[in-house]
Amino acid sequence: MPLHDFSVIESTLREGEQFSTATFNTEQKMEIAALLDEFGAEMIEMTSPLASPQSEADIRSVVGMGLRPRILTHVRCAREDVLRALDTGVHGIDIVIGTSPQLMQHSHGKNIAQVIDTALDVITFVREQSPDIILRFSTEDSFRSRESDLLRVYLAVADTGYVNRLGVADTVGFATPNQVYALVHQLVRLTGLDIEFHGHNDSGCAIANACAALEAGATHIDTTILGIGERNGITPLGGLVARLYTLDRAYVAKYNLPMLPILDAMIAEFCHIGIPFNNYITGASAFIHKAGIHAKAVLADPNTYEVLNPADFGLSREIAIGHRLTGWNTIRDRAMKLGLTLPDSIVKHVTQIVKAQADQATLTLAQVDALLHQAAEEHAVSGQ
Amino acid sequence: MPLHDFSVIESTLREGEQFSTATFNTEQKMEIAALLDEFGAEMIEMTSPLASPQSEADIRSVVGMGLRPRILTHVRCAREDVLRALDTGVHGIDIVIGTSPQLMQHSHGKNIAQVIDTALDVITFVREQSPDIILRFSTEDSFRSRESDLLRVYLAVADTGYVNRLGVADTVGFATPNQVYALVHQLVRLTGLDIEFHGHNDSGCAIANACAALEAGATHIDTTILGIGERNGITPLGGLVARLYTLDRAYVAKYNLPMLPILDAMIAEFCHIGIPFNNYITGASAFIHKAGIHAKAVLADPNTYEVLNPADFGLSREIAIGHRLTGWNTIRDRAMKLGLTLPDSIVKHVTQIVKAQADQATLTLAQVDALLHQAAEEHAVSGQ
Repeated sequence: MPLHDFSVIESTLREGEQFSTATFNTEQKMEIAALLDEFGAEMIEMTSPLASPQSEADIRSVVGMGLRPRILTHVRCAREDVLRALDTGVHGIDIVIGTSPQLMQHSHGKNIAQVIDTALDVITFVREQSPDIILRFSTEDSFRSRESDLLRVYLAVADTGYVNRLGVADTVGFATPNQVYALVHQLVRLTGLDIEFHGHNDSGCAIANACAALEAGATHIDTTILGIGERNGITPLGGLVARLYTLDRAYVAKYNLPMLPILDAMIAEFCHIGIPFNNYITGASAFIHKAGIHAKAVLADPNTYEVLNPADFGLSREIAIGHRLTGWNTIRDRAMKLGLTLPDSIVKHVTQIVKAQADQATLTLAQVDALLHQAAEEHAVSGQ
Repeated sequence: MPLHDFSVIESTLREGEQFSTATFNTEQKMEIAALLDEFGAEMIEMTSPLASPQSEADIRSVVGMGLRPRILTHVRCAREDVLRALDTGVHGIDIVIGTSPQLMQHSHGKNIAQVIDTALDVITFVREQSPDIILRFSTEDSFRSRESDLLRVYLAVADTGYVNRLGVADTVGFATPNQVYALVHQLVRLTGLDIEFHGHNDSGCAIANACAALEAGATHIDTTILGIGERNGITPLGGLVARLYTLDRAYVAKYNLPMLPILDAMIAEFCHIGIPFNNYITGASAFIHKAGIHAKAVLADPNTYEVLNPADFGLSREIAIGHRLTGWNTIRDRAMKLGLTLPDSIVKHVTQIVKAQADQATLTLAQVDALLHQAAEEHAVSGQ
């Protein structure tokens, strides 16, 4: 499926700060921004200047770095908020307001007519203040909002001609790919504006939903490094890259892919968390092949069980050997690497020994090597 | 969307054993099986008896436990393999053979005509040996196989009337929900047999793909606890539950949900891995609300930002307080919990102090409480 040319809105410095253990100091924020620039992120979203004094100062610091990514800040739909945002010198403002019944009742207390009035007032105010700033308007909790409410809001906002981008947000992490496709496609068709998707991962579809948004014509995807954010987070940058790479490597060729392991390691350190064992691309086991049938085929051609080439990310694959699921092709490959030429019957015999011993405890590579050397000596002694 | 009634094929004891650090001893396997029974898993799949002597003995041990879940073993499509499987007393045999060009070349070396001949021979052999055993036939790497090859194989196998279930496998973890839906729907329509989906997670769609399979009429989903498996694993049991719960809690009401945290903790311990910080339901941050806007709304009604009720899993939510993104509603809620009645102006002032101090380092709850008590004393002294 051909996807629209897209940009990443890297929100580690906004959504990411909402992760339980994330509290970045100024130096860390600048390092994150610099490495995201090196990776090739098109936009970087930062916490509202109203959050705290340092939050405001840090926007100025990152804007002052003069990086290639456009620097955005994410604020409530209120004149006070956008005025403070404009004062920081950011390149873009991301405005958000809740439209689901749940959030209209408990977040801001406005009904949908008031939401529309507020949105139009604030958007017009921004354009009066700054004709050129990149302006996004997003609903919050879009997928629990009434469709009729959403359309009234988006169409009124689009009609002003003042916004560059509309955002849709799966704030609670429960949308399905089909729902995301339908809403994004409708907005693309009705407004012709750029569309941004923001998706939480509570039910494990944040990557699939981001991909569905792109298929429907979305132009911007929100990500964070390792996916950190409120609760269990949003679409992870590395996971989105993995998904698009497997569809067509050309989609992510514009990014500096070997930066991904560096970005993931940095955030794990800053947030005092481990990189999940099962993380996309950078998880410890992402490129380990274990079962004998898998290992045999990967030794012949890695493409058999790999749709991501670890070398593209500066990583390497590993064939696990000394366990009970090992196969004789794996053991033979190891013997050849040791320079030992053994008949298949002996390799198979050694394999059975490895399996039986591994039933008690996994063997180290040195232990497997010792068994192979011993078999080679016995084979030589037996006069062949 | 109404889903077909479905069963979980819990493969922690097969696919899970292919995870790099998983080597379960007999006692551990029996504990895993017993807790999966307590959870309500319908089927448990175990490693082939040909893998190692202990693998074979462990199948007999687990079968001998007399649990409610049906015990299956997963073997290559070969007479030798199924004969060994039948001898263990399992309730079901899961046969698999590669059908993608990559696996036909490097895994077994057969062309598609030979694959069909082998499949028919082995299936017939199983039925001759055991009229009642549950028999599944699956292709491997189904989504990189030629569609015409897949249909030839599946239709020939279905036509025997000997198999209970057909399996489709996204072995390399690159299928999209739409591709899964299309293939499963086609097989349901053409064969009327039960359909099983097995999906790897290399590109982050294993949960979305399992859900798409169910929407298309699949009856069985392969899972493992924490998603452990080859490389970065497959559809996690807890993630599948989270996904289905958010669609309709009734889909997972048949399971003992508070067992999920126990299952995840057990596998993390056995495999010497951490539960990922962002894990579905059981990740450390899954039910932590941080940003002031979120916390305010969750205090009024948790449904505002939660589509999973932590209490259903024996867990509880947490409102983070002492950070720079905190809000005055959160601080007011804390003051009320401390029995302090303060005017809003003072709560807002304390909030600004918390934010400014948190810009340097996150405050503990005790530090926030101290600020509130101090404000209450000053307020009392000032004579109100």
